[in-house]
Amino acid sequence: MRTTTGWESTGRSTELRRVPLERRDLREDDLAVRVEYCGVCHSDLHSLHGLTGKPTEGLVPGHEFTGVVTAVGAGVTAFAPGDRVAVGTIVDSCGACAMCRAGQENYCYEGATSTYGTKDRVDGTVTKGGYSREYVLREKFAYRLPEGLDPAAAAPLLCAGITMWEPLKAAGIGAGSRVAIAGLGGLGHLGVKLAAALGAEVTVLSRTPGKAGDARALGATGLLDTTDETQLAGAAGRFDLVLDTISAPHDLAPLLRLLGLDGTLSVVGLPVEVPVQLRHLTYGRKKLTSSGTGGTRGTAEMLAFAAEHGITAEVELLPSARVEEALTRLERGDVRFRFVLDLSDLD
Amino acid sequence: MRTTTGWESTGRSTELRRVPLERRDLREDDLAVRVEYCGVCHSDLHSLHGLTGKPTEGLVPGHEFTGVVTAVGAGVTAFAPGDRVAVGTIVDSCGACAMCRAGQENYCYEGATSTYGTKDRVDGTVTKGGYSREYVLREKFAYRLPEGLDPAAAAPLLCAGITMWEPLKAAGIGAGSRVAIAGLGGLGHLGVKLAAALGAEVTVLSRTPGKAGDARALGATGLLDTTDETQLAGAAGRFDLVLDTISAPHDLAPLLRLLGLDGTLSVVGLPVEVPVQLRHLTYGRKKLTSSGTGGTRGTAEMLAFAAEHGITAEVELLPSARVEEALTRLERGDVRFRFVLDLSDLD
Repeated sequence: MRTTTGWESTGRSTELRRVPLERRDLREDDLAVRVEYCGVCHSDLHSLHGLTGKPTEGLVPGHEFTGVVTAVGAGVTAFAPGDRVAVGTIVDSCGACAMCRAGQENYCYEGATSTYGTKDRVDGTVTKGGYSREYVLREKFAYRLPEGLDPAAAAPLLCAGITMWEPLKAAGIGAGSRVAIAGLGGLGHLGVKLAAALGAEVTVLSRTPGKAGDARALGATGLLDTTDETQLAGAAGRFDLVLDTISAPHDLAPLLRLLGLDGTLSVVGLPVEVPVQLRHLTYGRKKLTSSGTGGTRGTAEMLAFAAEHGITAEVELLPSARVEEALTRLERGDVRFRFVLDLSDLD
Repeated sequence: MRTTTGWESTGRSTELRRVPLERRDLREDDLAVRVEYCGVCHSDLHSLHGLTGKPTEGLVPGHEFTGVVTAVGAGVTAFAPGDRVAVGTIVDSCGACAMCRAGQENYCYEGATSTYGTKDRVDGTVTKGGYSREYVLREKFAYRLPEGLDPAAAAPLLCAGITMWEPLKAAGIGAGSRVAIAGLGGLGHLGVKLAAALGAEVTVLSRTPGKAGDARALGATGLLDTTDETQLAGAAGRFDLVLDTISAPHDLAPLLRLLGLDGTLSVVGLPVEVPVQLRHLTYGRKKLTSSGTGGTRGTAEMLAFAAEHGITAEVELLPSARVEEALTRLERGDVRFRFVLDLSDLD
């Protein structure tokens, strides 16, 4: 066993404690990664609150991180010690089903292995995430961090970024597309950057008109105030894609009305049951869809695109000892736009 | 005014009475059509039962018919008396909105004028449908019936056919696609024929395994018994498109499970509110959509395709005097596969 240090749930909400952690000895195709920066994702909060079905006892969150390879298994060919890598939300899958073969291991029919809180496929131990100084994983699920991307600001690409990238690509967004991004948080702000770089005309949908300046700075042409019925009515039928990142329960009907013919409402922030009036889809042949992060194919593609266009997250970087502050501020929406933990204080 | 004869609702369920009807004098761009054959659509039943919001008093149903042009307005250029034409579910629209400009007048933002039961845009009278010997409409909404298509069997193409065509085309169905058609009635049987002619491998989903012979005769490779959990589980992830023509309320979750990556569930038979578990869309990035008949662009395209592939509906042809028998048998699902009324008995 290898030993490292990390932040573990006490089982009491956002309170974490610094603990020694074990990491497995390297298997044939494993990498050991010294974690440098790990983003704080809203689903970390959900997991700490027991809302994702993962046991909170001993939970070590963190599934968007960057770091440096420190050791490799005997069979590893793609990486060497010293390589800078990035790791996202999944670290293994069956590798054989149709989803895995398509590079969409996130939808593996046998269930992908999450970066934290699910069982390793070989030894059955529960995975512990990137709020720690070292991580060990199969090389297949590590990505070379492209040159030129800041390692701290790039970390959120591995969850928030890919979560935005996949629905944009699935909807065929490109030059001339009209995209609305609902919500301007950790997900939404990367959605704006990626959609704009793909050539789309991007509008932010928000209840906070004061965010218009931020929206434009990120690459949007403007902000539509969703509390203003006149603005909403004026934008009816305008968009090819509405990318809905809002996690609080909300009515989908006003968002569907913004779609034009064959438009898509992609809901990524709301993993619950919603009532849908089919006629709101019928008139305009609209589509309702959802997706969850991405697989190896899309993640590699997204990282290359981000490097080409110089896209990283807007982050507030904190020493990992301040993780509870990050979580509690995230919980009340007080973040611009993503917290990233610097794990070097764990040495 | 012109006078003709038709079948009008008595306001008592499926009981219709033979009455004289007025048709407007021809406007500049109008055609008069001697109606020969009119299909009996499930939505005719819904309308007679007051379920579509149309007043039942004086209702004359019928929105998929074929006939012969008998007279044309002074400005008509595309048709002449003697031309065989087909008419579908809409007879006018604003012509100016984005939907109309896209040839999707069925989604006209100002509301398309239905073939029966809505107000004419010029004189405000309520339209009366194809259960009658003559119909008058703008030439823009009449289609030349291609040579070689039997006029009686072609009539249902104008509603049932286009209702299947548009979701097949919107989902990009072609050679190699895997399509499941849920329900093998008036809509579904044309869905099978059209999807098979597009090159797809087609499976019928039904609670009635005895329909397997019919399914194969129509062009499907087989039938999946939706009451058999083992069959359902074995087909999980199999289809690119599930085209759901079932009008009775039902759970969408088992149909969503049949979809592969980026697959589409297109619901055309169920115009109500349904509860949707977003996670059933998330895993596999699946799409839920709906559509309603089609516009002038798709209808013309569908008719050309039907002619090229010799596709018409399987019909039971009845003299129009037996309309009540057709409606009551349709109501209990006793039809192979579409009733068509022969209006010549109205002379």
